[in-house]
Amino acid sequence: MVTSRWTAAPAQTASLRRRGPVLERAILDAALEQLSTVGWNGLTMEGVAAVAQTGKAAVYRRWPSKEDLVADALRAGLPRFEDVPDLGGVREDLLELCRQAREAMFSRPGFALRAVIHECDQVQAERFHAVIFNGVVEPSVKLLHEIVTRGIERGEVRPDAANDYVFDAIPAMMMYRSKMRGSEWDDLEMEEMIDQLVLPLLRPTGS
Amino acid sequence: MVTSRWTAAPAQTASLRRRGPVLERAILDAALEQLSTVGWNGLTMEGVAAVAQTGKAAVYRRWPSKEDLVADALRAGLPRFEDVPDLGGVREDLLELCRQAREAMFSRPGFALRAVIHECDQVQAERFHAVIFNGVVEPSVKLLHEIVTRGIERGEVRPDAANDYVFDAIPAMMMYRSKMRGSEWDDLEMEEMIDQLVLPLLRPTGS
Repeated sequence: MVTSRWTAAPAQTASLRRRGPVLERAILDAALEQLSTVGWNGLTMEGVAAVAQTGKAAVYRRWPSKEDLVADALRAGLPRFEDVPDLGGVREDLLELCRQAREAMFSRPGFALRAVIHECDQVQAERFHAVIFNGVVEPSVKLLHEIVTRGIERGEVRPDAANDYVFDAIPAMMMYRSKMRGSEWDDLEMEEMIDQLVLPLLRPTGS
Repeated sequence: MVTSRWTAAPAQTASLRRRGPVLERAILDAALEQLSTVGWNGLTMEGVAAVAQTGKAAVYRRWPSKEDLVADALRAGLPRFEDVPDLGGVREDLLELCRQAREAMFSRPGFALRAVIHECDQVQAERFHAVIFNGVVEPSVKLLHEIVTRGIERGEVRPDAANDYVFDAIPAMMMYRSKMRGSEWDDLEMEEMIDQLVLPLLRPTGS
């Protein structure tokens, strides 16, 4: 369409009309920004709308409550889990997986998630524990399955190690020591856990 | 001292003057009673004093805050851990230990403790998590040490199993599966965990 110099509206004054995923992305980013500046308690739907340069109706239409919005923003912000590590052996693969889980919990959304859990009430906290479970624990346990299965195929892991209790052990230990011992899971601690707990648990008998 | 019929005050109208441990016991019991009737939110120092038939000054003198009083009441009410189980073998001893830990968390104070954690704010909740740690986890891990040490002496357990990561595994699993999977740790689940996770972790290589 040809527009003459006299009738074309300057680009800068055109209203910013975003749709669908672009607008949603802007709202979720605004929610993460608000979490890092004013925290869970200070965050409001109006404040998020303002930062996203949209109206609060656009926010409420998609996210009926503060919990819904913040849970989605955090889940969307958490690092994705890579393909299953394949570094040549079970020990290296497990260490790489644990590092990825740690990076997720120490990413900016991971910190924000833990701060929110600390600030909100118990009912809301369960919602955000679910974000940790669905966004970090479950994807990493899926990769753990694959590492163990491949280890069995390679003879590094005993066949009966592929059970729910073994798979729960790593996330259970990481959560427990974080909560009860204030552990931040540095590389040394991770190696010790893999060497003193996980590898003895997985290796074939007689080896 | 001889008292004549005319001057002796009848026993029933003598004021109930309790001292020291007896009065403290009455106050702690009253706190547990209030927890089970009105819960954390409904409990007040005045209400506890009334149930204990004492003045609130007697309560505040010993327990400056609601958290102090309730934490002490719960800790005092939790079942004590018995001497280390000695049922003839590592598997039976571990199962007995896990049952004792479960009984503690499902005792009346154990239920009350978990209800309080659910009702109170996050800062207060950390206080009550410490009651679980000091009152249930730590005593049971001490017994776990003894079971593992005895197992090493008997040749049932490999010598390098006596490390912090192995000792953390059982409480870590019990907390994780309670929280994440809603597990109530019935006998079957306990046996599965011992057989599929703990015994493979402890047994000597080559066995």
